Amino acid sequence: MNHRAIRYFLAQILRIEGVFMIPALLLSIFKQEWSSVRGFAVTLVIIIALSFLLSINTRGSRNIFAREGFVIVALSWITLSLVGALPFYISSHIPSFVDAFFETVSGFTTTGATILTDVEIMPMGLLYWRSFTHWLGGMGVLVFLLAIVPLSQGGGSSLHILKAESPGPVVGKLTPKLRQSVSILYLIYIGMTVLEMVLLLAGGMPLFDAITTAFGTAGTGGFSIKNASLAPYSVYCQMVVAVFMMLFGVNFSIYYLLLIGQLKQIWKNEELKAYLSVMLISTLLITINVLPKFTSFGDALQHSYFQVSSIMTTTGFSTVNFDLWPEFSRMLLVLLMIVGACAGSTGGGMKVSRILVLIKSLRHGLKKLIHPRAIKVIRLDGKRLDETSVAGIEWFATAYFVIIAGSMLLVSLDNFSFDTNISGVLACINNIGPGLDMVGPMGNYCEFSVLSKLVLCLDMLVGRLEVFPILFLFSPSVWAKHHR
Amino acid sequence: MNHRAIRYFLAQILRIEGVFMIPALLLSIFKQEWSSVRGFAVTLVIIIALSFLLSINTRGSRNIFAREGFVIVALSWITLSLVGALPFYISSHIPSFVDAFFETVSGFTTTGATILTDVEIMPMGLLYWRSFTHWLGGMGVLVFLLAIVPLSQGGGSSLHILKAESPGPVVGKLTPKLRQSVSILYLIYIGMTVLEMVLLLAGGMPLFDAITTAFGTAGTGGFSIKNASLAPYSVYCQMVVAVFMMLFGVNFSIYYLLLIGQLKQIWKNEELKAYLSVMLISTLLITINVLPKFTSFGDALQHSYFQVSSIMTTTGFSTVNFDLWPEFSRMLLVLLMIVGACAGSTGGGMKVSRILVLIKSLRHGLKKLIHPRAIKVIRLDGKRLDETSVAGIEWFATAYFVIIAGSMLLVSLDNFSFDTNISGVLACINNIGPGLDMVGPMGNYCEFSVLSKLVLCLDMLVGRLEVFPILFLFSPSVWAKHHR
Repeated sequence: MNHRAIRYFLAQILRIEGVFMIPALLLSIFKQEWSSVRGFAVTLVIIIALSFLLSINTRGSRNIFAREGFVIVALSWITLSLVGALPFYISSHIPSFVDAFFETVSGFTTTGATILTDVEIMPMGLLYWRSFTHWLGGMGVLVFLLAIVPLSQGGGSSLHILKAESPGPVVGKLTPKLRQSVSILYLIYIGMTVLEMVLLLAGGMPLFDAITTAFGTAGTGGFSIKNASLAPYSVYCQMVVAVFMMLFGVNFSIYYLLLIGQLKQIWKNEELKAYLSVMLISTLLITINVLPKFTSFGDALQHSYFQVSSIMTTTGFSTVNFDLWPEFSRMLLVLLMIVGACAGSTGGGMKVSRILVLIKSLRHGLKKLIHPRAIKVIRLDGKRLDETSVAGIEWFATAYFVIIAGSMLLVSLDNFSFDTNISGVLACINNIGPGLDMVGPMGNYCEFSVLSKLVLCLDMLVGRLEVFPILFLFSPSVWAKHHR
Repeated sequence: MNHRAIRYFLAQILRIEGVFMIPALLLSIFKQEWSSVRGFAVTLVIIIALSFLLSINTRGSRNIFAREGFVIVALSWITLSLVGALPFYISSHIPSFVDAFFETVSGFTTTGATILTDVEIMPMGLLYWRSFTHWLGGMGVLVFLLAIVPLSQGGGSSLHILKAESPGPVVGKLTPKLRQSVSILYLIYIGMTVLEMVLLLAGGMPLFDAITTAFGTAGTGGFSIKNASLAPYSVYCQMVVAVFMMLFGVNFSIYYLLLIGQLKQIWKNEELKAYLSVMLISTLLITINVLPKFTSFGDALQHSYFQVSSIMTTTGFSTVNFDLWPEFSRMLLVLLMIVGACAGSTGGGMKVSRILVLIKSLRHGLKKLIHPRAIKVIRLDGKRLDETSVAGIEWFATAYFVIIAGSMLLVSLDNFSFDTNISGVLACINNIGPGLDMVGPMGNYCEFSVLSKLVLCLDMLVGRLEVFPILFLFSPSVWAKHHR
């Protein structure tokens, strides 16, 4: 294990976090929120000290293997969250450190699950930082690092990190140069975020609300600065957010193809078609199911579309309390939590493409029963998937369900309802945020015990980093001496 | 597709069902329950007519392939249930045919989910038949047929049927001769059932209760002739049942090895060790969790053991209303439903050995991340599993969860609680019977709509026949003309 490289990356990540904390500090000073100013200032001092200590004696090879890639990503995310939680804790606005950590993990992993019972009394500087963690976590902070820091050894090392941090089974490089690909991704991301802000401002949303809402949408996070989430805003603003949630749930390489005019390749993308179809069908089914609860079909359609777009993209904003909807709609939303968004988007969940491959694998298995000598060929977007990719996806699904089962069991020790335990774990591991009953759109996670909160933090990290890096940290052989 | 062979087997199966209905008819005559006598007599006439019609022109090749094996098994079970439901319906004791069909599918698949709100008012003849379906379904009716009917073409055809009907990923032949193996299995099954009856009689249980309870235990079914299941009986009788449930959840080849003195091979059986460990640990965890609800530790332990043994073996008897237990116990019981019993037992669920292989596959996957060139070797009982077996298990798990998700969605249309929908589907597909809330141990399935009942019937069949045969029936290519 290359410890120097690991420390080097951790120090870099902390510096980036520090730089991004400065706007929140300035906002706090401007608004004269002195408790928040203290929180951010002390945290910045800690960041400077820590990154200095980590940087000592990091010269030498930065060559890393897949092993180090996973460890760097896992440790970076844990460090980011531990340090990112400090402003909430030091400012005393979240008096428990576990709660502050939960809120920050929820932010960076773009979950949006909150322990705050009243978000509207929080100072603006902290609310800005809370929403900004979504934006930074959405595309990935290490991806950001790769975009700005040139690694002397070329793309090999970076690819291992990118693979570990990016959502989805396959990392598609847009261009042969990794750094260029990553920069393009971030430019698209920034462009779309700004576009959403402008459209929200055009609809009369206040500036601060527009900024934080756009951060929450772009990262498919879901933290809102209102207790009633998006309910207080106009229908126009709600629809802008609904459409942008859907757009941020699409694989970003689609936008790159759009930019370079490769429309034909977009048309061939099976995941995109499946994603939009599932969203359309689910919206229609829920609209019919909730029709008696609304005054008109249009009203029902609008709220159904918002909630489906929010849950499937794993954002977690809401315009109504869908926990009160009929059981069919509640069950469908819970199942959509598992499906999630497209690979290569900022969304979580299992990802549409994984579900597609699993279903194709099912169909193949049935065929093999009839024709035992049939050869397993599974194609996605017309390209043949190798056995290793398919096996990897099946492996992922197994790990995912084992972790879900264990988490549900641990969380149920708190003796809250069956709905709460199941939907809470699913909402955290799939990075959605709100679930049902106690953790419904009008509820929160504050009542859970410390054990449950830590389990759910782990679930959020497992979900955002797609199982491997976090599971890796718990594997004793990773830390064995005989590895270099 | 060899239609003649399929018709031949269906006719044989119907004849066996007819023969086994005669004791129920005689009991009804003896007890002067004339409505039941009518029910059984009319059904027997229908069976004779149907089996005659099916037998027309079935001479010729009885050579079958895996394809026909699956179709024969699936159609046999559906036919058995349709015809087995007639006595309930014709006697007017279950006025709705869908309800009678549900009750019979639940019986043959050894689920034990009931639509009866008061089982104690049912005539004895019908109760006998209801419990007997568990016994016949437990070991498998086609397995029984193979034990008594010599197939001229030798073991090849029979093996396809045995594979399709037997629970578990691998069919282990006990002896080189299939018919002999199957006969040994049935002899062990009969011996253990009789032993349980004797022990229950020794504890003062009335004869009729002892017979029906032993049928329900042997098949890991769970139909009881009392509304409160096993609660009205003595602690001794409850413990006899608890131990026998556990024994019937063990792979029957273990008993064969015991009979021929191969103790060393039993010791090597990983599934048995895992099965007993999970049962022990779960019992202890639940005992601690429910301690405040009981007067003594012994009392809590005894009821915890009974419920764990009942749920994990997928039997479904109960001595207390575990739906009222704390959430941790409820969640653990729901998760045990999915695990299920050992392969090659009469129990349902995913089977302990499948879970073992999935967990081993997980560990291997983690190892492969560290050593990418590691070769996938997964061993069970010291023997290396080939890739196809492992892939088959992963395939099974995928199909299983897709069917569960779809069923939950359809059942939730009835708008009963989240607990009811999730536990109801799991209790049916894993062949347990009682779930939580409305379908809890003191509840029943009668309130569900016709659609939900049919979905749950399909789930029970899918669970008992382990996905393939039933899924097979829905595959259009199976019925395509170009297959012979």
